[in-house]
Amino acid sequence: MIDFSSVKKASKSLSLATKEQKNLALKNVANALIENALLIERENEKDLEIAKANGLKESMIARLTLKKAQIEAIASDILKVIELDDPVGEVLEDFVSRDGLKIKKVRVPLGVIGVIYEARPNVTVDVSSLCIKTGNACVLKGGKEAVNTNKILVQIIKGAISSVISQDAVMLLEDRTAADELLKAKGYVDLIIPRGSKNLINHVVENATVPVIETGAGVCHTYVEKSADFEMAIKIIDNAKTSKPAVCNALETVIIDRAIAKEFCPIIEKFANLKGVKIHADSDALNYISGDFIDESGYSIEYNSLEMSVKIVDDIDGALEHISTHSTKHSECIISTDKAKIDKFLSSIDSACVYANASTRFSDGGCFGMGAEIGISTQKLHARGPMGLKEITSYKYVIEGNGETR
Amino acid sequence: MIDFSSVKKASKSLSLATKEQKNLALKNVANALIENALLIERENEKDLEIAKANGLKESMIARLTLKKAQIEAIASDILKVIELDDPVGEVLEDFVSRDGLKIKKVRVPLGVIGVIYEARPNVTVDVSSLCIKTGNACVLKGGKEAVNTNKILVQIIKGAISSVISQDAVMLLEDRTAADELLKAKGYVDLIIPRGSKNLINHVVENATVPVIETGAGVCHTYVEKSADFEMAIKIIDNAKTSKPAVCNALETVIIDRAIAKEFCPIIEKFANLKGVKIHADSDALNYISGDFIDESGYSIEYNSLEMSVKIVDDIDGALEHISTHSTKHSECIISTDKAKIDKFLSSIDSACVYANASTRFSDGGCFGMGAEIGISTQKLHARGPMGLKEITSYKYVIEGNGETR
Repeated sequence: MIDFSSVKKASKSLSLATKEQKNLALKNVANALIENALLIERENEKDLEIAKANGLKESMIARLTLKKAQIEAIASDILKVIELDDPVGEVLEDFVSRDGLKIKKVRVPLGVIGVIYEARPNVTVDVSSLCIKTGNACVLKGGKEAVNTNKILVQIIKGAISSVISQDAVMLLEDRTAADELLKAKGYVDLIIPRGSKNLINHVVENATVPVIETGAGVCHTYVEKSADFEMAIKIIDNAKTSKPAVCNALETVIIDRAIAKEFCPIIEKFANLKGVKIHADSDALNYISGDFIDESGYSIEYNSLEMSVKIVDDIDGALEHISTHSTKHSECIISTDKAKIDKFLSSIDSACVYANASTRFSDGGCFGMGAEIGISTQKLHARGPMGLKEITSYKYVIEGNGETR
Repeated sequence: MIDFSSVKKASKSLSLATKEQKNLALKNVANALIENALLIERENEKDLEIAKANGLKESMIARLTLKKAQIEAIASDILKVIELDDPVGEVLEDFVSRDGLKIKKVRVPLGVIGVIYEARPNVTVDVSSLCIKTGNACVLKGGKEAVNTNKILVQIIKGAISSVISQDAVMLLEDRTAADELLKAKGYVDLIIPRGSKNLINHVVENATVPVIETGAGVCHTYVEKSADFEMAIKIIDNAKTSKPAVCNALETVIIDRAIAKEFCPIIEKFANLKGVKIHADSDALNYISGDFIDESGYSIEYNSLEMSVKIVDDIDGALEHISTHSTKHSECIISTDKAKIDKFLSSIDSACVYANASTRFSDGGCFGMGAEIGISTQKLHARGPMGLKEITSYKYVIEGNGETR
């Protein structure tokens, strides 16, 4: 049995820490990472050797690697977090009730946040710093591929914060059993954020009794409406699909109005050939474009690579229907010059981010001006879309009276 | 297998309904309830007969009863909901991003809200009207004691709304198996709110894969700090304990500083004798006051009746510690004239509503100016404390560009 009482206790004192204390703790972490860069590289080497021996994919190994440059980048991200406004203590509402009570709605930390993630060890530092900044303690469960790297990172973080705040404010879990205990740690943990594969997220949702925010599943659509500017359309599709195919805000499906399919599909095909993008399509779409056959269920696949689906629809209602069926409610876009169609799309689509004439790749805390991001929520409760500092806080009502009774 | 696809479909069109359409649907419901009062009373009689035959408690039967007066009160509550501002469509943020995108954060309905509740059939109408007002469809699972009443109420609601919005926007589930399917209806239901006993809430939390907001568990504390005005203290304790003992914002435990215990406990005893309040206390507190013995675990009991616990502490840290251990994070109060102690209490207590010198009975959507309430959240995610119309909405980002790529 894992004991979560010390992280809970640490969250209480951390919730009362001043902005200056939290920023000092973060400054110490940034410095300690730089000072211990060699140590981190050495531990990271162990993980890399195991990964190579296990035949891990090149892209996974790249994500796992921490050299001096990456460590400096991580430390510099912490300095950026220090510069952000501390949302804790913000007065969201302030009023006198009908009974004469002075009521304030005040932003407070959530408490203890559990984050379960895969390979990338920079997440260990990112999550720790965002949580410390917002007065939240955190419980981290990283991927087993990064176990040595995560251990040394958390050891360095704990040492660096301990002169200012409790080192128990950051806790690392080391095995899968521990993660399953985290999911049931009601009363100790206030929120769990799973970041990673669909399987990981489903496992968390199925088993957690602690509240969960689902993140990152992104079957994102771009709909080319018949009035679209083709040049703009292909520029946006290219960017949304190829600029970073592995991320959740990348495009997975292009939907095209039948009226322009004959004209626009060859343009798509040309782009796909040029950029090495593989096309999947149902039998209807294969009349307009060449590609691999998929049935209806194929349109729910998140490729996360240089592959995409193409769907032909009769009109905007067909596009809305297709998106409603296959979307993970992350980000969708309409490309159109018809204001009525754009307005209909923007109001009807039930996703975190709905675009007209821009790449879905902008669904990102940085692009939205949040300064940092702990994940992108695809559920509707609490936070939707990119989650920055405010999104990992809660609030409480502080009520001052003078003997009032009801 | 229950089919939730029609309620999901109805939620989509309801989410696009205008304020006028939603208010017209509500007006129709209010009228239909008045017109069908006799029919409702007749069905309610069936439930009452079964309840009496089963020996249900007087208080439960009172809560189950719907006569003309109650039906009129319910209809008049709907008229009040009509008068409230429609939160849907509110622009929460509106800015131009660093990339030149026009980004709006817009309030939208949550989608489909499931509510699982016990005995009181007025909840059936209250929840339906709050959901319709906010563009949410709802799935209702009422108590089996009210099955006939709930059936006729939902039948009347469906008939009344059907000329304006889809009658599928309100769905009634009739048995426990159906409720368990509701808990797993991910992709169809966006939120489940359990209202009722601790057992009911725990069952929902343990089994739901749909996000849950826990409500209503209220072990509320009032702490009499040594500088307190005794007259104010007893007035607040009396109100918090006896004005409506069955509700979640009622007082369960009085905490008293040891320095004033000898002087204040006789005052508490006198009040308790006068108002018929039974006192529970641990062996330490029994040195100061007479009552039934409880051990530490007894302080976690929510009596919901004319019973209360008394705890003696050495100082404010002892009070904070006791509350941290036993509170359900609903509402707590300090009675004090010492500003430093008050500030410490208000900032340290991690509950939805923290009071200085006022009755915890004010933790209520009406008292907080929300106009209506769907429950009182005791968790920190999404909504905390009284939940009004805004608290059953979400938001989405609407982004307009002109061909921007990242």
